[in-house]
Amino acid sequence: MSGKRTRLTPQARRAQLIDLGVEMLATRRLDDLSVELIAKSAGISRGLLFHYFPSKQDFHLEVARAAAAEMLRRTEADTELTPVEALHRALTSFMDYVEENPDNYKSLVRGAASGDAKMRAIFDGTRATMAQRVIEVIGGMGFEVDARTRLAIHGWVAYVEECVVRWIDDGGLERDDLLEMLTKSLPAIALSASDADVGTLASILTAEQAIGVK
Amino acid sequence: MSGKRTRLTPQARRAQLIDLGVEMLATRRLDDLSVELIAKSAGISRGLLFHYFPSKQDFHLEVARAAAAEMLRRTEADTELTPVEALHRALTSFMDYVEENPDNYKSLVRGAASGDAKMRAIFDGTRATMAQRVIEVIGGMGFEVDARTRLAIHGWVAYVEECVVRWIDDGGLERDDLLEMLTKSLPAIALSASDADVGTLASILTAEQAIGVK
Repeated sequence: MSGKRTRLTPQARRAQLIDLGVEMLATRRLDDLSVELIAKSAGISRGLLFHYFPSKQDFHLEVARAAAAEMLRRTEADTELTPVEALHRALTSFMDYVEENPDNYKSLVRGAASGDAKMRAIFDGTRATMAQRVIEVIGGMGFEVDARTRLAIHGWVAYVEECVVRWIDDGGLERDDLLEMLTKSLPAIALSASDADVGTLASILTAEQAIGVK
Repeated sequence: MSGKRTRLTPQARRAQLIDLGVEMLATRRLDDLSVELIAKSAGISRGLLFHYFPSKQDFHLEVARAAAAEMLRRTEADTELTPVEALHRALTSFMDYVEENPDNYKSLVRGAASGDAKMRAIFDGTRATMAQRVIEVIGGMGFEVDARTRLAIHGWVAYVEECVVRWIDDGGLERDDLLEMLTKSLPAIALSASDADVGTLASILTAEQAIGVK
């Protein structure tokens, strides 16, 4: 217990409390994140926690922000890879993250319309970053990124989210099959939003060795 | 005013109040639907409205249920058409509905995670019906509908919703271009979720005259 009672600088204490929040978020929804439990884990009083965060809502916002940043960090694309490999790798990291933090992720996606504007801003910002990364991948695949493609990519992010959330809840197929399907769906969607020749899709979808799928 | 004061049977009055709610929902969010305004439009007192509905929340639920039923009715597939034509027609009706009821639709989609379990059940039921219809279309296109395809179709519904909601807010492309893109996206997604040959997609996507797009 003595370790927990260590005096920390205000900045370090704040970071510690947020980290604890992110950690606990893995297996519970943000709404169910108890400040009492967090304070107890940090070995401080509930009152002291509110010394660092003006309100429970502010604390939740910081935790959501940190969780989103962590997710984005872990799914960052490796620019050394080909676009399709990078996409497959990023989706794999994304699935790893989601499987380690199922409740957190579900509450992030499903709670996007939480009615709380600040919370929604965090969620929208995360989605926008993901969409921007995908736009770069799609550009790298040789697609022209116009307004229609851009819209399709935002739609694709929603597609991935819906598939992943349903898969967590219902299962029904192997993780690798899901990853293959999600990887292929991006060029498929980009094609359906472009005037590109179907051959473009064919060459991408049949480059199966490149993405390590059957 | 005399018409408004007509005595109606309880059932007819109830239906009238729900209809008024659905009508007003076109240009405002469900949360902003005022019972006072509804009662005034019907020429009855606020108190009498609560004679027909136990609470404001119950009234809102009935309105949401009626709005969802109306949307589903209008977008029902025409079984006389080929699958791709039926899809294009259904998407066109869907866009018509959304353009006439932009706020209603947005609040339906974005409010899906409204925190209210009964409201969410209405939304989930609507989505499930849409997905089931799409599964039939996809079957008609010659795709085998296994667990992976089924998941992809649920994802596709989210894809369409996201694209349409963004398009209402931001525009950026012609309505016909959006419709073409959405129509093509379904076989593209189904292909990416199947082991089907790319030729299947090619033949569907190039049947452009059939769906009346360029």
